[in-house]
Amino acid sequence: MDAAEFRKSGKQMVDYIADYLEKIDKRQVFPDVEPGYLRPLIPDCAPQDPESFDDVFKDIEKIIMPGVTHWHSPYFFAYFPSTSSFPALLADMLCGGIGCVGFSWAASPACTELETVMMDWLGKMINLPEEFLAEKGGQGGGVIQGSASEATLISLLAARTKTIRRVQSEKPELTEADIMGRLVAYASDQFCATLGTTPCCSFDKLFDLGPICNKKSFWMHIDAAYAGSAFICPEFRHLLNGVEFADSFMFNPHKWLLVNFDCSAMWVKKRSDITSVFKLEPLYLQHQHQDSGLVTDYRHWQIPLGRRFRSLKLWFVLRMYGVRGLQEHIRKHIRLSHQFEDLVLQDERFEICAEVVLGLVCFRLKGSNELNKELLKSINEAKKIHLVPCHLREKFVLRFAICSRVVETTHVEFAWQHISQLATDLLKAWEQNHHQQHQQ
Amino acid sequence: MDAAEFRKSGKQMVDYIADYLEKIDKRQVFPDVEPGYLRPLIPDCAPQDPESFDDVFKDIEKIIMPGVTHWHSPYFFAYFPSTSSFPALLADMLCGGIGCVGFSWAASPACTELETVMMDWLGKMINLPEEFLAEKGGQGGGVIQGSASEATLISLLAARTKTIRRVQSEKPELTEADIMGRLVAYASDQFCATLGTTPCCSFDKLFDLGPICNKKSFWMHIDAAYAGSAFICPEFRHLLNGVEFADSFMFNPHKWLLVNFDCSAMWVKKRSDITSVFKLEPLYLQHQHQDSGLVTDYRHWQIPLGRRFRSLKLWFVLRMYGVRGLQEHIRKHIRLSHQFEDLVLQDERFEICAEVVLGLVCFRLKGSNELNKELLKSINEAKKIHLVPCHLREKFVLRFAICSRVVETTHVEFAWQHISQLATDLLKAWEQNHHQQHQQ
Repeated sequence: MDAAEFRKSGKQMVDYIADYLEKIDKRQVFPDVEPGYLRPLIPDCAPQDPESFDDVFKDIEKIIMPGVTHWHSPYFFAYFPSTSSFPALLADMLCGGIGCVGFSWAASPACTELETVMMDWLGKMINLPEEFLAEKGGQGGGVIQGSASEATLISLLAARTKTIRRVQSEKPELTEADIMGRLVAYASDQFCATLGTTPCCSFDKLFDLGPICNKKSFWMHIDAAYAGSAFICPEFRHLLNGVEFADSFMFNPHKWLLVNFDCSAMWVKKRSDITSVFKLEPLYLQHQHQDSGLVTDYRHWQIPLGRRFRSLKLWFVLRMYGVRGLQEHIRKHIRLSHQFEDLVLQDERFEICAEVVLGLVCFRLKGSNELNKELLKSINEAKKIHLVPCHLREKFVLRFAICSRVVETTHVEFAWQHISQLATDLLKAWEQNHHQQHQQ
Repeated sequence: MDAAEFRKSGKQMVDYIADYLEKIDKRQVFPDVEPGYLRPLIPDCAPQDPESFDDVFKDIEKIIMPGVTHWHSPYFFAYFPSTSSFPALLADMLCGGIGCVGFSWAASPACTELETVMMDWLGKMINLPEEFLAEKGGQGGGVIQGSASEATLISLLAARTKTIRRVQSEKPELTEADIMGRLVAYASDQFCATLGTTPCCSFDKLFDLGPICNKKSFWMHIDAAYAGSAFICPEFRHLLNGVEFADSFMFNPHKWLLVNFDCSAMWVKKRSDITSVFKLEPLYLQHQHQDSGLVTDYRHWQIPLGRRFRSLKLWFVLRMYGVRGLQEHIRKHIRLSHQFEDLVLQDERFEICAEVVLGLVCFRLKGSNELNKELLKSINEAKKIHLVPCHLREKFVLRFAICSRVVETTHVEFAWQHISQLATDLLKAWEQNHHQQHQQ
């Protein structure tokens, strides 16, 4: 395939994606396929000779789409949002076209420098303390990781190295293994200090935890993977108060800020805490500018060596939505979650299981876990909407997460009517069943 | 931006990418910018109100391109290739459009199943022992990681867990920390068992290492990040002989197999060796099919939870090039490296520093490291081509790596004439300098 063919097929793909996203509400949100569906549909090895784009293109609807869970459907209320937006798609196309691997400043200066500045933009949008920013020649700064797990791992490794070095300087007789065996990582039953947990979007109390961590020289990492995006709205920023105690902080713009996966934003107060753990300088990665003090080599901030030009997504999205556009998106989602909460509260058969702070509603039928498991089963088997459950203090709970960029009041109302009807059917069946058992 | 606007701007972006790649040889391969160039060119915070796509689009040439190192230029001979191809760009567009997060089978069955089958296709293309494949219900299988470093880390963690469990079962009196302190990871001076090292593309002797590892129950991980792609050609497959001793094996299709970054292919003989290290089953990630035995939940195979639909890139590339098309690509690169090697050998001032096996030529001027550092400096300051150096046994060596998909004989000849001329100028200056010093 040459550039001329790419012009043609690329435009075909643009139209396909636009069609897909424009009419995504017409597709069943969860697929009908059973495990193992795909292998029999395709050959068991790669072709020797090239196939045409048209052949491959036809197979998208035939082979791929039947097995896709449509995360961007307005009927998708599972997990947490994984956002998508047209500006981010455009930026990702450009990222692929440039195709640089920005492990060092020299490997593509624009890739590194845009990332540093975008992380400052983003930090300012959530009013992060200045110590976390790079702009004024401070010791802090931000980096885009691939996932929240990577950010957690980096923090753990940095914390471990820092603690081992401190203890070794105090007690030189201890070996690294001696110290390692005694290290402790504190976490709650929902995982680090978390703002917006996955099961129920609860918030740890930073003002209780922070001073203890600082006093005891514990590394404090705050994970606000989902909730962080909401902090761009002044009315939710208070949830981040106490971040000033943290050593590292992260949230996922790819969850809720209309930046396509993957884009995990992580900031540290002291860059050297993480770069000193990972620094590796083989000659082929050295370049003349690296000791100038002005240069960031992001390979020292992460597990992988290579990295894509992900900051383009942030740049496109922040500019083409503007802060106000993104605030509107967040506020719409939170409005919809409260709308759903109200619908649940008006129905005496149901209960709300955790405070609705952002875009997640945890709810259940009053009654047994078995009953709620049956309800979820009937919801997901009907495949008109898609939800996942969680456990909250031994209770089986249904999670209703506002996810899609295009979800509106009508979809939430439809979802509630559907759940409510399934609950009616289920309760009737249970009652009959109970009645029959009683008669026997 | 709505779907209609995306149709328009997406097509504009397709043309921009096609133009960029079609005329990439007209751009200076390495940028002129100095560290810190970008920040003054853009505002210091995100705009409150949306900007138009046209405004953002104009800034690509104004702000981004002046700072890009053009990895796909036919004058780029640095590091190792990071491939790019039009079929892979198309697949990445689709991946973004679908935007699913395939951490479990249920999160998007197509995403998981295509990956498993593509890893079998790829494994068969390099004639990997059947134990590493998933297709016949065996214990092995493949996964796409983000980078070779992640694959190494996963192997290390799996090896550590497996060894600790084994030692604990033999000596229950030892704590995990006791055992951890005594664990050893063996590596050569070029990093695990490696096929195609980064400095000079050398190969470890698997037939020497393998039997020892197996006898001693050492985990053997083989990293063929760059070289692995060449094994699709029967004439280079012998370099992989001995892989049958390994527990895990990986190579990067994103390096040399025309699949855009990121796509690191990793296989294990025993899936349970890695899934048992990472398995985590919160309720919101459980689904009804997971215990069927037919289902792969790839989150247990990797550090991150989320993952993109990267197998689409493999599917598009393997089908639209065919095995023969990819073999041609590999063979062209290797032919060009030997062409460059011949040019070096014909010039008595130069020497070849390591056997040229694949697409990398390590060479230097006969003489001091200082002289060669000066030569590299003059090459990279002229910015007509781009190279990076390495150290081989105390010697400062220049690496000439065949990288671009569109590099041809003419570019290699140009590069050599350019290097040769710079060497002539340099040697003349050194001689004059020496002569002057002698006279003083």
